[in-house]
Amino acid sequence: MAMPPSTYPRCLLPLFLGLFQGTLLLFFALFVTYDEASAQAEDTNLVANRVYSTFPFFQDIQVMLVVGLGLLLTFLPRYGFSALTHNFLLLNFSMQWALVLQGLLHHFHHGQIHLDLHKLLISEFAAVTVLISVGAILGRASTCQLLVMATCEIPAYLASEWVIVTCLGVLDVGGTITIHVFSCYFGLGVSKALFRATQQPLHPKETPTPRSDLMSLVGTLILWVFWPSFVAVLCQPGDSQHRAILNTLLAMSASAITTVVTSSLLEREGKLSPGHLQNGSLAGGVAIGVVADMAMPPVAALALGSLSAVVCVLGFRFLTPLLGRKLTLRDQCGIHNLHGLPGILGAAASVVAVLVASKDTSGSRSSQLSPVRGNASQVLEGRPGAGGAGGQALCQAAGLAVALGASLLAGLLTGAALRLPCLARPPERLCFDDSLYFKIQDQAESPGPDSSAEEGALSLKEQV
Amino acid sequence: MAMPPSTYPRCLLPLFLGLFQGTLLLFFALFVTYDEASAQAEDTNLVANRVYSTFPFFQDIQVMLVVGLGLLLTFLPRYGFSALTHNFLLLNFSMQWALVLQGLLHHFHHGQIHLDLHKLLISEFAAVTVLISVGAILGRASTCQLLVMATCEIPAYLASEWVIVTCLGVLDVGGTITIHVFSCYFGLGVSKALFRATQQPLHPKETPTPRSDLMSLVGTLILWVFWPSFVAVLCQPGDSQHRAILNTLLAMSASAITTVVTSSLLEREGKLSPGHLQNGSLAGGVAIGVVADMAMPPVAALALGSLSAVVCVLGFRFLTPLLGRKLTLRDQCGIHNLHGLPGILGAAASVVAVLVASKDTSGSRSSQLSPVRGNASQVLEGRPGAGGAGGQALCQAAGLAVALGASLLAGLLTGAALRLPCLARPPERLCFDDSLYFKIQDQAESPGPDSSAEEGALSLKEQV
Amino acid sequence: MAMPPSTYPRCLLPLFLGLFQGTLLLFFALFVTYDEASAQAEDTNLVANRVYSTFPFFQDIQVMLVVGLGLLLTFLPRYGFSALTHNFLLLNFSMQWALVLQGLLHHFHHGQIHLDLHKLLISEFAAVTVLISVGAILGRASTCQLLVMATCEIPAYLASEWVIVTCLGVLDVGGTITIHVFSCYFGLGVSKALFRATQQPLHPKETPTPRSDLMSLVGTLILWVFWPSFVAVLCQPGDSQHRAILNTLLAMSASAITTVVTSSLLEREGKLSPGHLQNGSLAGGVAIGVVADMAMPPVAALALGSLSAVVCVLGFRFLTPLLGRKLTLRDQCGIHNLHGLPGILGAAASVVAVLVASKDTSGSRSSQLSPVRGNASQVLEGRPGAGGAGGQALCQAAGLAVALGASLLAGLLTGAALRLPCLARPPERLCFDDSLYFKIQDQAESPGPDSSAEEGALSLKEQV
Repeated sequence: MAMPPSTYPRCLLPLFLGLFQGTLLLFFALFVTYDEASAQAEDTNLVANRVYSTFPFFQDIQVMLVVGLGLLLTFLPRYGFSALTHNFLLLNFSMQWALVLQGLLHHFHHGQIHLDLHKLLISEFAAVTVLISVGAILGRASTCQLLVMATCEIPAYLASEWVIVTCLGVLDVGGTITIHVFSCYFGLGVSKALFRATQQPLHPKETPTPRSDLMSLVGTLILWVFWPSFVAVLCQPGDSQHRAILNTLLAMSASAITTVVTSSLLEREGKLSPGHLQNGSLAGGVAIGVVADMAMPPVAALALGSLSAVVCVLGFRFLTPLLGRKLTLRDQCGIHNLHGLPGILGAAASVVAVLVASKDTSGSRSSQLSPVRGNASQVLEGRPGAGGAGGQALCQAAGLAVALGASLLAGLLTGAALRLPCLARPPERLCFDDSLYFKIQDQAESPGPDSSAEEGALSLKEQV
Repeated sequence: MAMPPSTYPRCLLPLFLGLFQGTLLLFFALFVTYDEASAQAEDTNLVANRVYSTFPFFQDIQVMLVVGLGLLLTFLPRYGFSALTHNFLLLNFSMQWALVLQGLLHHFHHGQIHLDLHKLLISEFAAVTVLISVGAILGRASTCQLLVMATCEIPAYLASEWVIVTCLGVLDVGGTITIHVFSCYFGLGVSKALFRATQQPLHPKETPTPRSDLMSLVGTLILWVFWPSFVAVLCQPGDSQHRAILNTLLAMSASAITTVVTSSLLEREGKLSPGHLQNGSLAGGVAIGVVADMAMPPVAALALGSLSAVVCVLGFRFLTPLLGRKLTLRDQCGIHNLHGLPGILGAAASVVAVLVASKDTSGSRSSQLSPVRGNASQVLEGRPGAGGAGGQALCQAAGLAVALGASLLAGLLTGAALRLPCLARPPERLCFDDSLYFKIQDQAESPGPDSSAEEGALSLKEQV
Repeated sequence: MAMPPSTYPRCLLPLFLGLFQGTLLLFFALFVTYDEASAQAEDTNLVANRVYSTFPFFQDIQVMLVVGLGLLLTFLPRYGFSALTHNFLLLNFSMQWALVLQGLLHHFHHGQIHLDLHKLLISEFAAVTVLISVGAILGRASTCQLLVMATCEIPAYLASEWVIVTCLGVLDVGGTITIHVFSCYFGLGVSKALFRATQQPLHPKETPTPRSDLMSLVGTLILWVFWPSFVAVLCQPGDSQHRAILNTLLAMSASAITTVVTSSLLEREGKLSPGHLQNGSLAGGVAIGVVADMAMPPVAALALGSLSAVVCVLGFRFLTPLLGRKLTLRDQCGIHNLHGLPGILGAAASVVAVLVASKDTSGSRSSQLSPVRGNASQVLEGRPGAGGAGGQALCQAAGLAVALGASLLAGLLTGAALRLPCLARPPERLCFDDSLYFKIQDQAESPGPDSSAEEGALSLKEQV
């Protein structure tokens, strides 16, 4: 039986969030300062140049996460406002939470955490994992459940990233393994543990309308445009960053075209599926991240982009329905097709790239994803006798395995925790509807001139 | 009795605008040239670097004003096209008008005004005041009224800014006092004088629909993303600018989370109000502007962001209805909650910040909002014995008082002028409707397949 | 008789696109490498600076083409998804195709093409011509027809650009003649040859709705904001680029205001036409491109912007209906008014500008549109006795003539080729509808709560 909405423990959300914000204030008051350079003129120039070289990339990434990803999630026609708001809230929550945890882990010098734009960027990257994972359970989880999920995912991500990048020395400048693969399988784990074996019919509100598909496509296009900034922001300036930008552009361009080819071959009458376009066009960006700054020929970027689009569309067409039937696994946005499969493909490509181009690559590789990661770039140079390219290839494969294992385990545990009754999972019939969480009138989209008076009397009076 | 639309003095708009554009051409022909550096190689590099360091910020701000703010105003479901167009028209009109006035006031050297990107940016900032003020009377004023309002507001703003920044030496790098507080109370003054004591029932067309709320939220998110550029563009490059960016990011992140907490506590059943989200998430950006580049601890930015979101949401919930009842004051977009209250809060914070951090701050403060404002940065340094921090704190408070007084007075006078019959205020029943100003078919949103033939015959034939 | 959709040769699209992508892969594998600087520290700095100075412009242009132009084309209410997708597909296809052809023509050194960001940008500019030309036949052509059109247009553009810029030495930094004029008349040629003399009544689905007009206006605003980046990206850094940015800003600001004046004077009851606003506001940007970096006074930019807006709006009001009646010429988006007329106006302005400002201009002119074009900048300097300003003015006029002639001829030939039956032009009654190419449910925009269950059962099951 579905509970009437009024009986939900609604006070939990403000309590949880308020407590979090209060703790954060305390933590910042005690431990965080700005990383001020001394007042010398040279330093000022240095800081200014660092701002000018990072800030445009940072803004591009903010647009991607806040506007692009938000709009991509609005394909559920009556859940657009929720999708956009939850995405926005989770980004801020996860970013602050990651800032605290990363501060505690890495940057605690002399009892103080020195905040700068680079650390905010790293925290933002951690937050991305949450935004991706949400896609698996979009529309069926309460705000509280999403926040608890973020609370669990950020430390799991940081731990997994530490093992993969710092311990194993995996090269992954665009976050293909550390971010995309991890967040995908974490999300699937949560979905599996949260929804268990219940297989349910298609919910009437989960079918996109032409308008919601259009908004979602706009989100895809915004993500597509700014993706090179996401991949290249942490590359070493110069050739390495230049190459990362070019490789990403080529991979994504190939993805766009190959998606059309594949979708058109698979669908009845050659019609294209909006879902394929919205996701397949981005698959190249997911896959290229791990090899973007390696010295490989441009054709490799094109091929990887094409291949990942094929894999993504095939996944939507065959694998998602199969997983739904066999494993009763729900994946609302198809994150397995956009982040999981292309991510694994990218990881495999990185193994090949390291093996093939071992000599050329090592010199110009860079990895600045975290200060600690500086070691990684010397892997191939510093230990010339100790395995070299073969060793690095093994590391890449091991990194993928760690990401897969850690994310699935952490996801399943988190999903089990989300079943706590107090977290108020909405009953099935109230899912996919903005009016559950927002003072928004029911989606009577086109009231006639007569109905609008009544409609006016019902709602947002404080806007007047 | 409402006049039929055809009897409006429609020729007034092209007459007024045409005359303005003509005068502007004449003015430019006589007085304006480009600020060409001499042809030496070093200068070329200097100019190039100036362009590269300013232009990305400038573009960010353009996106905010043209796309972000425009979309934010589309929450009126049948007035979206008007809101977007009026916002766009007023931005261009006010920017050009401010360019002329600022040229006359400040930059008249040797009978010539030398135009550069920085001066365009300053004029754009002046135009922002108009775009904010419009929010108070959105949907109820004619295009002509809005243009006359812009004509009056720009000189009032420039005068007030001159007193606040140049005479009083107020530190306000993000325009919290000079732009946000001023434009808010100017808009409220206009609204009060224009609509007088008439209290009217909720207009059936002023209630947002889910779709218009979604578009408006997208506008909010665009503003949220680019706000750091708005605050930091005029800071001194280096630490000062870096700090302004970080402070703004922290304040806005705290705002986003606190808005959800506060709205959820205030609303029935814990549901969030779209209006709160659309505005509260930005309140931190308004408040932080005046202290963004001061050397305060990061926790202060977080606290200020949180506090301003609380104030903004409380304003929507309690103050706006109260002002509506007691003072019959209309504030269509709630600019008092987004710009007024957080602006005053920011000003108060700047008094505290100056007092507390007087010694550390003075050295690194910068203020380049106008060339004349250069003096301001030496206030604390240059006159070490003459009051120092206490004096500067007094100045900040005095600046707020000037902004409040000047804007209310100028707003009331402007509002009275807008009652001139020739300016064609639309009758109440025609308000909030695009079809009053645009050749747009009536909002029959979802014509069936049968009605569309007829619909086609009615409209835009030149598009064919 | 209209064929039922299922009889179309749907496999042609994947075949054609797949073959293209395969050939491209082969070509890249054989001939394309990255343009790696040697590993010296100075070079790294140089490359880094080049990336920082070009990449923000490049991203701005990507937003314009993918999001802005895409949204501008969504004014057809039931064709938004197709417009956005076709725009996106054609951009990628044309860019890759231009990359191949330009590589073959210009950059073939030592059997290898060295790819860099600048070459991608040049290819992107070539792709713009296709995106503009499509406007003439939007909604009435099949995806295959559009791809064949792109295949023909890119070589024609490259040849015409080679003649205009390299042979004639025309100065055209913003692509007014080479891109806008060329693509407009190419598109009109295609439209004429493809649709021949058939004059048909207004299609019921080609009338914009308020919502589709709003989306289209958002596209206009995005284009408007980023246009300065498009014009200035290839200018010489320093004063020249600074001037190009300012000129474009002034011209577009004047366009916005003048469009309102003109539209309001022309329309019944002084109401503004959405189509005028969507296009007229951008006309200044088209016209200013050819003179943007010349040393002319700012008033000239304002005047040119105003004039081109007038010309554009007059074109929509009088010329398009006239051409439709007399020449049975279809121009769905009115590209003749936005790109043709203002382009010719800009070319005329460049003749005047060269004549008037011959001495001042020559020194600071730059033209980097293609490596070969380096010669152009020495035209006025290097041959001081050989015609000088008068010669250059002649060249500008000759360039316009070449662009007009070449584009019309190539367009007519291409249009004739598009009549091949295998290219599957959709029958008139199926035009302007997303459901012809996409697995998208019919535009039943506002299903009641009862119909949504049925609606759900019909569609995108793989999204679940």
